[in-house]
Amino acid sequence: MLTFIGLGLYDERSVTVEGQDALRAADRVFAEFYTSRLVGSSVDELEAYHGVDIEVRDRAGVEQEPEPVLAAAEEEDVAFLTAGDTMISTTHVDLRLRAHKRGVDTRVIHGVSAQSAAAGLTGLQNYRFGKATTLPFPGAHGGDDVPASVIDTIEANRERGLHTLVYLDIKVDDPTADAAGLAEGEEYMTGEYAAELLAEGWADELAVVVGRAGSPEPVVVADRLSALAEREFGAPLHLLVIPAAPHHLEADALRELAGAPAALLGDQ
Amino acid sequence: MLTFIGLGLYDERSVTVEGQDALRAADRVFAEFYTSRLVGSSVDELEAYHGVDIEVRDRAGVEQEPEPVLAAAEEEDVAFLTAGDTMISTTHVDLRLRAHKRGVDTRVIHGVSAQSAAAGLTGLQNYRFGKATTLPFPGAHGGDDVPASVIDTIEANRERGLHTLVYLDIKVDDPTADAAGLAEGEEYMTGEYAAELLAEGWADELAVVVGRAGSPEPVVVADRLSALAEREFGAPLHLLVIPAAPHHLEADALRELAGAPAALLGDQ
Repeated sequence: MLTFIGLGLYDERSVTVEGQDALRAADRVFAEFYTSRLVGSSVDELEAYHGVDIEVRDRAGVEQEPEPVLAAAEEEDVAFLTAGDTMISTTHVDLRLRAHKRGVDTRVIHGVSAQSAAAGLTGLQNYRFGKATTLPFPGAHGGDDVPASVIDTIEANRERGLHTLVYLDIKVDDPTADAAGLAEGEEYMTGEYAAELLAEGWADELAVVVGRAGSPEPVVVADRLSALAEREFGAPLHLLVIPAAPHHLEADALRELAGAPAALLGDQ
Repeated sequence: MLTFIGLGLYDERSVTVEGQDALRAADRVFAEFYTSRLVGSSVDELEAYHGVDIEVRDRAGVEQEPEPVLAAAEEEDVAFLTAGDTMISTTHVDLRLRAHKRGVDTRVIHGVSAQSAAAGLTGLQNYRFGKATTLPFPGAHGGDDVPASVIDTIEANRERGLHTLVYLDIKVDDPTADAAGLAEGEEYMTGEYAAELLAEGWADELAVVVGRAGSPEPVVVADRLSALAEREFGAPLHLLVIPAAPHHLEADALRELAGAPAALLGDQ
Protein backbone atom coordinates (compact mmCIF):
# COMPACT_ATOMS: atom_id res chain seq x y z
CA MET A 1 0.00 0.00 0.00
CA LEU A 2 1.32 3.43 -0.98
CA THR A 3 -0.36 6.45 0.61
CA PHE A 4 0.47 9.89 -0.76
CA ILE A 5 0.07 12.54 1.92
CA GLY A 6 0.11 16.31 1.41
CA LEU A 7 1.65 17.95 4.48
CA GLY A 8 0.03 21.33 3.90
CA LEU A 9 1.61 24.73 3.71
CA TYR A 10 3.74 25.58 6.70
CA ASP A 11 4.81 23.24 9.49
CA GLU A 12 4.26 19.88 11.19
CA ARG A 13 0.70 20.80 12.16
CA SER A 14 -0.42 21.79 8.64
CA VAL A 15 -1.26 18.17 7.74
CA THR A 16 -4.81 16.91 8.22
CA VAL A 17 -5.64 14.71 11.20
CA GLU A 18 -6.31 11.88 8.74
CA GLY A 19 -2.91 12.43 7.13
CA GLN A 20 -1.22 12.50 10.52
CA ASP A 21 -2.89 9.24 11.52
CA ALA A 22 -1.85 7.60 8.26
CA LEU A 23 1.76 8.71 8.38
CA ARG A 24 2.12 7.63 11.99
CA ALA A 25 0.61 4.22 11.21
CA ALA A 26 2.86 3.58 8.20
CA ASP A 27 5.60 0.97 8.32
CA ARG A 28 7.93 3.22 6.35
CA VAL A 29 7.77 6.95 5.60
CA PHE A 30 9.41 8.48 2.54
CA ALA A 31 9.34 12.18 1.61
CA GLU A 32 10.52 14.53 -1.10
CA PHE A 33 11.11 18.24 -0.54
CA TYR A 34 12.45 19.29 -3.92
CA THR A 35 9.08 20.19 -5.49
CA SER A 36 8.00 22.24 -2.47
CA ARG A 37 9.09 23.01 1.10
CA LEU A 38 7.66 23.28 4.59
CA VAL A 39 9.41 26.46 5.68
CA GLY A 40 8.10 26.24 9.25
CA SER A 41 9.57 22.80 10.09
CA SER A 42 12.79 20.91 9.49
CA VAL A 43 12.77 17.19 8.75
CA ASP A 44 14.07 16.61 12.30
CA GLU A 45 11.14 18.55 13.72
CA LEU A 46 8.69 16.60 11.57
CA GLU A 47 10.20 13.32 12.75
CA ALA A 48 10.14 14.36 16.39
CA TYR A 49 6.58 15.70 16.30
CA HIS A 50 5.10 12.67 14.57
CA GLY A 51 7.42 10.08 16.14
CA VAL A 52 8.51 8.59 12.83
CA ASP A 53 11.68 8.16 10.78
CA ILE A 54 11.48 9.94 7.44
CA GLU A 55 13.59 8.78 4.49
CA VAL A 56 14.05 11.88 2.30
CA ARG A 57 14.48 11.16 -1.42
CA ASP A 58 16.03 13.71 -3.76
CA ARG A 59 14.88 14.27 -7.33
CA ALA A 60 16.98 11.42 -8.71
CA GLY A 61 15.80 9.19 -5.86
CA VAL A 62 12.18 9.68 -6.88
CA GLU A 63 12.32 10.09 -10.63
CA GLN A 64 15.18 7.81 -11.67
CA GLU A 65 15.25 5.37 -8.78
CA PRO A 66 11.72 4.90 -7.49
CA GLU A 67 12.38 1.18 -7.01
CA PRO A 68 13.05 1.24 -3.22
CA VAL A 69 9.76 3.08 -2.60
CA LEU A 70 7.77 0.79 -4.89
CA ALA A 71 9.36 -2.39 -3.54
CA ALA A 72 8.61 -1.33 0.04
CA ALA A 73 5.00 -0.51 -0.88
CA GLU A 74 4.55 -4.04 -2.23
CA GLU A 75 5.35 -5.47 1.19
CA GLU A 76 4.28 -2.88 3.73
CA ASP A 77 2.23 0.25 4.37
CA VAL A 78 4.30 3.06 2.93
CA ALA A 79 3.60 6.79 3.25
CA PHE A 80 5.03 9.24 0.73
CA LEU A 81 5.05 12.82 2.02
CA THR A 82 5.18 16.07 0.10
CA ALA A 83 4.91 19.70 1.20
CA GLY A 84 1.66 21.46 0.29
CA ASP A 85 -0.80 19.28 -1.55
CA THR A 86 0.21 15.98 -3.11
CA MET A 87 -0.15 15.17 -6.84
CA ILE A 88 0.71 18.78 -7.73
CA SER A 89 3.88 17.56 -9.39
CA THR A 90 3.75 15.14 -12.33
CA THR A 91 6.38 13.18 -10.40
CA HIS A 92 3.77 12.15 -7.86
CA VAL A 93 1.27 11.08 -10.51
CA ASP A 94 4.00 9.11 -12.26
CA LEU A 95 4.94 7.34 -9.01
CA ARG A 96 1.29 6.53 -8.34
CA LEU A 97 0.88 5.05 -11.81
CA ARG A 98 4.02 2.94 -11.41
CA ALA A 99 2.65 1.56 -8.15
CA HIS A 100 -0.75 0.93 -9.72
CA LYS A 101 0.79 -0.98 -12.62
CA ARG A 102 2.60 -3.23 -10.13
CA GLY A 103 -0.67 -4.02 -8.40
CA VAL A 104 0.07 -1.90 -5.34
CA ASP A 105 -2.98 -0.18 -3.83
CA THR A 106 -2.60 3.58 -3.64
CA ARG A 107 -4.37 6.26 -1.69
CA VAL A 108 -4.26 10.05 -1.78
CA ILE A 109 -4.67 12.18 1.36
CA HIS A 110 -4.99 15.75 0.22
CA GLY A 111 -3.20 18.71 1.77
CA VAL A 112 -4.08 22.38 1.85
CA SER A 113 -2.86 24.05 -1.33
CA ALA A 114 -1.45 27.50 -2.01
CA GLN A 115 -4.52 28.18 -4.13
CA SER A 116 -6.79 27.78 -1.10
CA ALA A 117 -4.59 30.11 0.88
CA ALA A 118 -4.32 32.71 -1.89
CA ALA A 119 -8.09 33.02 -2.04
CA GLY A 120 -8.72 32.65 1.69
CA LEU A 121 -6.18 35.23 2.84
CA THR A 122 -6.82 37.92 0.22
CA GLY A 123 -10.62 37.76 0.31
CA LEU A 124 -10.63 37.30 -3.47
CA GLN A 125 -13.28 34.80 -4.47
CA ASN A 126 -12.00 31.31 -5.14
CA TYR A 127 -14.25 30.79 -8.18
CA ARG A 128 -12.80 33.90 -9.87
CA PHE A 129 -9.27 32.49 -10.12
CA GLY A 130 -8.19 31.41 -13.60
CA LYS A 131 -5.17 29.33 -14.56
CA ALA A 132 -2.19 29.79 -12.26
CA THR A 133 1.36 30.44 -13.45
CA THR A 134 4.93 30.33 -12.09
CA LEU A 135 7.40 33.21 -12.31
CA PRO A 136 10.95 31.86 -12.74
CA PHE A 137 14.19 33.61 -11.80
CA PRO A 138 15.63 35.52 -14.77
CA GLY A 139 18.44 33.44 -16.17
CA ALA A 140 16.85 30.22 -14.96
CA HIS A 141 14.68 29.97 -18.05
CA GLY A 142 17.24 31.15 -20.58
CA GLY A 143 16.12 34.79 -20.70
CA ASP A 144 16.41 37.98 -18.67
CA ASP A 145 12.79 39.01 -18.73
CA VAL A 146 9.43 37.79 -17.55
CA PRO A 147 8.54 34.85 -19.82
CA ALA A 148 5.79 35.48 -22.35
CA SER A 149 3.83 32.55 -20.92
CA VAL A 150 3.47 34.38 -17.58
CA ILE A 151 2.31 37.60 -19.24
CA ASP A 152 -0.07 35.69 -21.51
CA THR A 153 -1.66 33.81 -18.61
CA ILE A 154 -2.23 36.99 -16.60
CA GLU A 155 -3.67 38.82 -19.62
CA ALA A 156 -5.88 35.93 -20.73
CA ASN A 157 -7.27 35.64 -17.20
CA ARG A 158 -7.85 39.36 -16.91
CA GLU A 159 -9.72 39.45 -20.23
CA ARG A 160 -12.13 36.95 -18.71
CA GLY A 161 -12.37 38.87 -15.42
CA LEU A 162 -10.28 36.31 -13.54
CA HIS A 163 -7.55 36.63 -10.91
CA THR A 164 -4.14 35.03 -11.39
CA LEU A 165 -2.12 33.25 -8.71
CA VAL A 166 1.59 33.57 -9.50
CA TYR A 167 3.81 30.97 -7.82
CA LEU A 168 7.32 32.28 -7.21
CA ASP A 169 10.38 30.25 -8.15
CA ILE A 170 12.27 28.16 -5.59
CA LYS A 171 15.83 27.13 -6.33
CA VAL A 172 16.90 25.69 -2.97
CA ASP A 173 19.23 22.72 -3.47
CA ASP A 174 18.81 23.23 -7.19
CA PRO A 175 21.96 22.91 -9.28
CA THR A 176 20.74 25.69 -11.60
CA ALA A 177 20.72 28.22 -8.70
CA ASP A 178 24.40 28.99 -9.28
CA ALA A 179 23.79 29.43 -12.98
CA ALA A 180 21.05 31.93 -12.17
CA GLY A 181 23.51 33.86 -9.99
CA LEU A 182 21.60 33.29 -6.74
CA ALA A 183 23.50 33.60 -3.48
CA GLU A 184 22.80 31.56 -0.35
CA GLY A 185 19.50 32.73 1.15
CA GLU A 186 18.24 34.11 -2.14
CA GLU A 187 16.88 30.87 -3.56
CA TYR A 188 13.28 31.63 -2.65
CA MET A 189 11.94 34.35 -4.93
CA THR A 190 10.47 37.10 -2.76
CA GLY A 191 7.27 39.01 -3.38
CA GLU A 192 9.20 42.29 -3.67
CA TYR A 193 11.50 40.80 -6.30
CA ALA A 194 8.58 39.34 -8.27
CA ALA A 195 6.81 42.71 -8.10
CA GLU A 196 9.94 44.41 -9.40
CA LEU A 197 10.11 42.02 -12.36
CA LEU A 198 6.46 42.52 -13.27
CA ALA A 199 6.50 46.28 -12.59
CA GLU A 200 8.67 46.81 -15.66
CA GLY A 201 5.57 46.48 -17.81
CA TRP A 202 2.86 47.09 -15.24
CA ALA A 203 4.11 49.63 -12.68
CA ASP A 204 0.65 50.88 -11.70
CA GLU A 205 -1.22 47.59 -11.72
CA LEU A 206 -2.77 46.30 -8.49
CA ALA A 207 -1.20 43.16 -7.04
CA VAL A 208 -1.21 41.34 -3.70
CA VAL A 209 1.76 39.74 -1.96
CA VAL A 210 0.98 36.89 0.44
CA GLY A 211 3.82 35.92 2.76
CA ARG A 212 3.97 32.77 4.88
CA ALA A 213 0.54 31.45 3.89
CA GLY A 214 -0.61 28.80 6.33
CA SER A 215 1.54 30.16 9.17
CA PRO A 216 0.06 31.75 12.31
CA GLU A 217 1.04 35.22 11.09
CA PRO A 218 0.74 35.52 7.33
CA VAL A 219 1.38 38.88 5.65
CA VAL A 220 -1.05 40.17 3.01
CA VAL A 221 -0.31 43.48 1.26
CA ALA A 222 -2.09 44.95 -1.77
CA ASP A 223 -0.61 47.87 -3.71
CA ARG A 224 0.77 48.93 -7.09
CA LEU A 225 3.46 46.58 -8.38
CA SER A 226 5.99 49.44 -8.30
CA ALA A 227 5.16 50.11 -4.63
CA LEU A 228 5.28 46.41 -3.67
CA ALA A 229 8.76 46.27 -5.24
CA GLU A 230 9.94 48.79 -2.59
CA ARG A 231 8.64 46.79 0.40
CA GLU A 232 10.13 43.85 2.31
CA PHE A 233 7.93 40.89 3.12
CA GLY A 234 10.31 38.88 5.31
CA ALA A 235 10.81 35.13 5.48
CA PRO A 236 9.57 32.82 2.68
CA LEU A 237 7.40 31.48 1.11
CA HIS A 238 5.77 34.31 -0.81
CA LEU A 239 2.98 34.25 -3.39
CA LEU A 240 1.81 36.98 -5.73
CA VAL A 241 -1.76 37.49 -6.87
CA ILE A 242 -2.74 39.72 -9.81
CA PRO A 243 -6.43 40.49 -9.34
CA ALA A 244 -8.91 41.23 -12.09
CA ALA A 245 -11.21 44.20 -11.37
CA PRO A 246 -12.44 43.31 -7.86
CA HIS A 247 -16.10 42.89 -7.01
CA HIS A 248 -17.47 45.06 -4.22
CA LEU A 249 -16.77 42.68 -1.32
CA GLU A 250 -13.35 41.78 -2.76
CA ALA A 251 -12.45 45.47 -2.92
CA ASP A 252 -13.54 45.87 0.71
CA ALA A 253 -11.34 42.95 1.70
CA LEU A 254 -8.31 44.24 -0.23
CA ARG A 255 -8.69 47.67 1.37
CA GLU A 256 -9.46 46.54 4.93
CA LEU A 257 -7.31 43.43 5.22
CA ALA A 258 -4.46 44.18 2.79
CA GLY A 259 -4.23 47.99 2.83
CA ALA A 260 -4.98 48.50 -0.87
CA PRO A 261 -5.08 52.20 -1.85
CA ALA A 262 -8.67 53.17 -2.71
CA ALA A 263 -7.54 54.69 -6.02
CA LEU A 264 -6.59 51.21 -7.28
CA LEU A 265 -9.90 49.58 -6.51
CA GLY A 266 -12.03 51.22 -9.21
CA ASP A 267 -15.77 51.76 -8.98
CA GLN A 268 -17.51 48.65 -7.74
CA MET B 1 -10.49 36.79 18.40
CA LEU B 2 -12.39 35.12 15.56
CA THR B 3 -10.73 32.13 13.90
CA PHE B 4 -12.25 30.79 10.69
CA ILE B 5 -11.50 27.09 10.29
CA GLY B 6 -12.08 24.98 7.18
CA LEU B 7 -13.00 21.45 8.26
CA GLY B 8 -11.96 19.82 4.98
CA LEU B 9 -13.91 17.53 2.73
CA TYR B 10 -15.33 14.52 4.48
CA ASP B 11 -15.41 13.87 8.23
CA GLU B 12 -14.11 14.90 11.65
CA ARG B 13 -10.54 13.96 10.71
CA SER B 14 -10.43 16.04 7.51
CA VAL B 15 -9.43 19.18 9.43
CA THR B 16 -5.75 20.07 9.81
CA VAL B 17 -3.99 19.39 13.10
CA GLU B 18 -3.63 23.16 13.50
CA GLY B 19 -7.35 23.61 12.90
CA GLN B 20 -8.17 20.86 15.38
CA ASP B 21 -5.95 22.45 18.03
CA ALA B 22 -7.56 25.85 17.45
CA LEU B 23 -11.14 24.63 17.58
CA ARG B 24 -10.48 22.61 20.73
CA ALA B 25 -8.84 25.62 22.40
CA ALA B 26 -11.66 28.02 21.53
CA ASP B 27 -13.99 29.35 24.22
CA ARG B 28 -16.97 29.07 21.89
CA VAL B 29 -17.40 27.19 18.62
CA PHE B 30 -19.90 28.28 15.96
CA ALA B 31 -20.47 26.54 12.62
CA GLU B 32 -22.53 26.87 9.48
CA PHE B 33 -23.37 23.93 7.21
CA TYR B 34 -25.59 25.60 4.63
CA THR B 35 -22.82 26.55 2.17
CA SER B 36 -21.28 23.06 2.27
CA ARG B 37 -21.54 19.78 4.20
CA LEU B 38 -19.35 17.17 5.83
CA VAL B 39 -21.13 14.08 4.58
CA GLY B 40 -18.97 11.70 6.66
CA SER B 41 -19.82 13.20 10.07
CA SER B 42 -22.85 14.53 11.88
CA VAL B 43 -22.60 17.54 14.18
CA ASP B 44 -22.93 15.15 17.14
CA GLU B 45 -19.97 13.14 15.88
CA LEU B 46 -17.92 16.27 15.39
CA GLU B 47 -18.73 17.40 18.93
CA ALA B 48 -17.89 14.01 20.42
CA TYR B 49 -14.64 13.59 18.50
CA HIS B 50 -13.30 17.05 19.32
CA GLY B 51 -14.86 17.33 22.78
CA VAL B 52 -16.54 20.66 22.07
CA ASP B 53 -20.04 22.11 21.88
CA ILE B 54 -20.87 23.44 18.44
CA GLU B 55 -23.49 26.17 17.97
CA VAL B 56 -24.80 25.70 14.42
CA ARG B 57 -26.03 28.90 12.73
CA ASP B 58 -28.37 28.76 9.76
CA ARG B 59 -28.21 31.19 6.84
CA ALA B 60 -30.24 33.87 8.61
CA GLY B 61 -28.17 33.34 11.75
CA VAL B 62 -24.98 34.18 9.88
CA GLU B 63 -26.06 36.67 7.26
CA GLN B 64 -28.82 38.64 9.00
CA GLU B 65 -27.92 38.09 12.63
CA PRO B 66 -24.15 37.83 12.93
CA GLU B 67 -24.26 39.87 16.17
CA PRO B 68 -23.99 36.93 18.63
CA VAL B 69 -20.88 35.61 16.85
CA LEU B 70 -19.26 39.05 16.67
CA ALA B 71 -20.11 39.97 20.24
CA ALA B 72 -18.65 36.70 21.50
CA ALA B 73 -15.48 37.24 19.45
CA GLU B 74 -14.97 40.63 21.12
CA GLU B 75 -14.75 38.94 24.51
CA GLU B 76 -13.39 35.46 23.90
CA ASP B 77 -11.62 33.15 21.48
CA VAL B 78 -14.28 32.13 19.00
CA ALA B 79 -13.94 29.51 16.26
CA PHE B 80 -16.20 29.60 13.21
CA LEU B 81 -16.31 26.28 11.35
CA THR B 82 -17.26 25.54 7.76
CA ALA B 83 -17.13 22.36 5.71
CA GLY B 84 -14.42 22.23 3.04
CA ASP B 85 -12.24 25.32 2.91
CA THR B 86 -13.23 28.55 4.63
CA MET B 87 -13.70 31.88 2.82
CA ILE B 88 -15.13 30.06 -0.21
CA SER B 89 -18.46 31.75 0.43
CA THR B 90 -18.78 35.54 0.37
CA THR B 91 -20.63 35.11 3.68
CA HIS B 92 -17.38 34.19 5.39
CA VAL B 93 -15.50 37.16 3.92
CA ASP B 94 -18.34 39.45 4.96
CA LEU B 95 -18.26 38.11 8.53
CA ARG B 96 -14.49 38.53 8.66
CA LEU B 97 -14.77 42.15 7.49
CA ARG B 98 -17.47 42.89 10.07
CA ALA B 99 -15.19 41.53 12.80
CA HIS B 100 -12.23 43.49 11.46
CA LYS B 101 -14.21 46.74 11.45
CA ARG B 102 -15.09 46.18 15.13
CA GLY B 103 -11.43 45.77 15.98
CA VAL B 104 -11.65 42.01 16.50
CA ASP B 105 -8.53 40.10 15.42
CA THR B 106 -9.28 37.45 12.84
CA ARG B 107 -7.39 34.42 11.63
CA VAL B 108 -7.94 31.96 8.79
CA ILE B 109 -7.02 28.27 9.06
CA HIS B 110 -7.38 26.79 5.62
CA GLY B 111 -9.07 23.49 4.83
CA VAL B 112 -8.60 21.10 1.93
CA SER B 113 -10.75 22.23 -1.00
CA ALA B 114 -12.65 20.30 -3.63
CA GLN B 115 -10.27 21.76 -6.20
CA SER B 116 -7.30 20.03 -4.57
CA ALA B 117 -9.20 16.76 -4.52
CA ALA B 118 -10.41 17.07 -8.12
CA ALA B 119 -6.86 17.40 -9.36
CA GLY B 120 -5.30 14.95 -6.92
CA LEU B 121 -7.76 12.12 -7.50
CA THR B 122 -8.08 12.36 -11.28
CA GLY B 123 -4.37 12.82 -12.02
CA LEU B 124 -5.23 15.92 -14.05
CA GLN B 125 -2.64 18.61 -13.46
CA ASN B 126 -3.64 21.26 -10.98
CA TYR B 127 -2.15 24.11 -13.04
CA ARG B 128 -4.30 23.16 -16.05
CA PHE B 129 -7.62 23.89 -14.30
CA GLY B 130 -9.38 27.08 -15.42
CA LYS B 131 -12.29 28.83 -13.75
CA ALA B 132 -14.66 26.48 -11.93
CA THR B 133 -18.44 26.55 -12.28
CA THR B 134 -21.54 25.22 -10.49
CA LEU B 135 -24.29 23.20 -12.17
CA PRO B 136 -27.65 24.05 -10.57
CA PHE B 137 -30.74 21.84 -10.49
CA PRO B 138 -33.06 22.62 -13.42
CA GLY B 139 -35.88 24.73 -12.07
CA ALA B 140 -33.68 26.14 -9.31
CA HIS B 141 -32.30 28.85 -11.58
CA GLY B 142 -35.52 29.67 -13.43
CA GLY B 143 -34.89 27.47 -16.46
CA ASP B 144 -35.04 23.82 -17.47
CA ASP B 145 -31.69 23.59 -19.18
CA VAL B 146 -28.04 23.87 -18.34
CA PRO B 147 -27.39 27.59 -17.80
CA ALA B 148 -25.41 29.34 -20.52
CA SER B 149 -22.85 30.43 -17.93
CA VAL B 150 -21.91 26.79 -17.28
CA ILE B 151 -21.54 26.01 -20.99
CA ASP B 152 -19.59 29.22 -21.56
CA THR B 153 -17.14 28.48 -18.75
CA ILE B 154 -16.46 24.94 -20.00
CA GLU B 155 -16.00 26.13 -23.59
CA ALA B 156 -13.81 29.12 -22.67
CA ASN B 157 -11.59 26.85 -20.58
CA ARG B 158 -11.36 24.24 -23.31
CA GLU B 159 -10.38 26.86 -25.89
CA ARG B 160 -7.42 27.65 -23.67
CA GLY B 161 -6.60 23.96 -23.11
CA LEU B 162 -7.89 24.03 -19.52
CA HIS B 163 -9.91 21.55 -17.46
CA THR B 164 -13.15 22.60 -15.74
CA LEU B 165 -14.25 21.55 -12.26
CA VAL B 166 -18.05 21.52 -12.09
CA TYR B 167 -19.49 21.75 -8.58
CA LEU B 168 -22.87 20.04 -8.31
CA ASP B 169 -25.81 21.75 -6.66
CA ILE B 170 -26.79 21.02 -3.05
CA LYS B 171 -30.29 21.86 -1.88
CA VAL B 172 -30.34 20.22 1.55
CA ASP B 173 -32.36 22.29 4.01
CA ASP B 174 -32.93 24.78 1.22
CA PRO B 175 -36.43 26.20 0.94
CA THR B 176 -36.14 26.22 -2.87
CA ALA B 177 -35.69 22.41 -2.96
CA ASP B 178 -39.47 21.95 -2.98
CA ALA B 179 -39.83 24.46 -5.77
CA ALA B 180 -37.27 22.51 -7.79
CA GLY B 181 -39.34 19.32 -7.26
CA LEU B 182 -36.65 17.51 -5.27
CA ALA B 183 -37.72 14.68 -2.98
CA GLU B 184 -36.05 13.77 0.32
CA GLY B 185 -32.66 12.22 -0.46
CA GLU B 186 -32.40 13.88 -3.85
CA GLU B 187 -31.06 17.22 -2.66
CA TYR B 188 -27.45 16.42 -3.54
CA MET B 189 -27.01 16.47 -7.29
CA THR B 190 -25.37 13.21 -8.34
CA GLY B 191 -22.65 12.76 -10.93
CA GLU B 192 -24.95 10.60 -13.07
CA TYR B 193 -27.63 13.28 -13.04
CA ALA B 194 -25.13 16.02 -13.91
CA ALA B 195 -23.76 13.87 -16.73
CA GLU B 196 -27.29 13.37 -18.06
CA LEU B 197 -27.89 17.13 -18.07
CA LEU B 198 -24.65 17.89 -19.90
CA ALA B 199 -24.93 14.89 -22.26
CA GLU B 200 -27.83 16.58 -24.02
CA GLY B 201 -25.34 18.73 -25.88
CA TRP B 202 -22.15 16.72 -25.37
CA ALA B 203 -23.02 13.00 -25.36
CA ASP B 204 -19.61 11.81 -26.52
CA GLU B 205 -17.44 14.21 -24.55
CA LEU B 206 -15.02 12.85 -21.96
CA ALA B 207 -15.84 13.66 -18.34
CA VAL B 208 -14.82 12.39 -14.91
CA VAL B 209 -17.08 11.82 -11.92
CA VAL B 210 -15.44 12.01 -8.49
CA GLY B 211 -17.50 10.61 -5.63
CA ARG B 212 -16.78 11.10 -1.93
CA ALA B 213 -13.57 13.07 -2.40
CA GLY B 214 -11.58 13.13 0.81
CA SER B 215 -13.11 9.89 2.09
CA PRO B 216 -11.11 6.68 2.51
CA GLU B 217 -12.74 5.20 -0.59
CA PRO B 218 -13.38 7.83 -3.24
CA VAL B 219 -14.78 6.78 -6.62
CA VAL B 220 -13.23 8.17 -9.81
CA VAL B 221 -14.73 7.20 -13.18
CA ALA B 222 -13.91 8.67 -16.60
CA ASP B 223 -16.13 8.02 -19.61
CA ARG B 224 -18.39 9.66 -22.18
CA LEU B 225 -21.02 11.88 -20.57
CA SER B 226 -23.76 9.66 -22.04
CA ALA B 227 -22.15 6.59 -20.43
CA LEU B 228 -21.62 8.31 -17.08
CA ALA B 229 -25.33 9.18 -17.10
CA GLU B 230 -26.13 5.42 -17.04
CA ARG B 231 -23.93 4.66 -14.00
CA GLU B 232 -24.57 5.01 -10.27
CA PHE B 233 -21.92 6.60 -8.10
CA GLY B 234 -23.46 6.05 -4.67
CA ALA B 235 -23.48 8.34 -1.65
CA PRO B 236 -22.72 12.09 -1.99
CA LEU B 237 -20.86 14.37 -2.51
CA HIS B 238 -20.07 14.11 -6.19
CA LEU B 239 -18.01 16.39 -8.43
CA LEU B 240 -17.74 16.45 -12.21
CA VAL B 241 -14.62 17.35 -14.17
CA ILE B 242 -14.64 18.18 -17.88
CA PRO B 243 -11.05 17.72 -19.06
CA ALA B 244 -9.40 19.54 -21.92
CA ALA B 245 -7.34 17.31 -24.23
CA PRO B 246 -5.20 15.42 -21.70
CA HIS B 247 -1.42 15.47 -21.74
CA HIS B 248 0.33 12.11 -21.94
CA LEU B 249 0.62 11.45 -18.20
CA GLU B 250 -2.91 12.74 -17.60
CA ALA B 251 -4.25 10.32 -20.22
CA ASP B 252 -2.36 7.48 -18.51
CA ALA B 253 -3.92 8.44 -15.19
CA LEU B 254 -7.45 8.68 -16.61
CA ARG B 255 -7.07 5.27 -18.25
CA GLU B 256 -5.35 3.46 -15.39
CA LEU B 257 -7.01 5.06 -12.38
CA ALA B 258 -10.42 6.05 -13.75
CA GLY B 259 -11.06 3.49 -16.50
CA ALA B 260 -11.31 5.97 -19.37
CA PRO B 261 -11.85 4.26 -22.76
CA ALA B 262 -8.70 4.66 -24.87
CA ALA B 263 -10.76 5.98 -27.80
CA LEU B 264 -11.60 9.12 -25.77
CA LEU B 265 -8.03 9.99 -24.89
CA GLY B 266 -6.84 11.15 -28.32
CA ASP B 267 -3.24 11.10 -29.46
CA GLN B 268 -0.98 12.49 -26.78
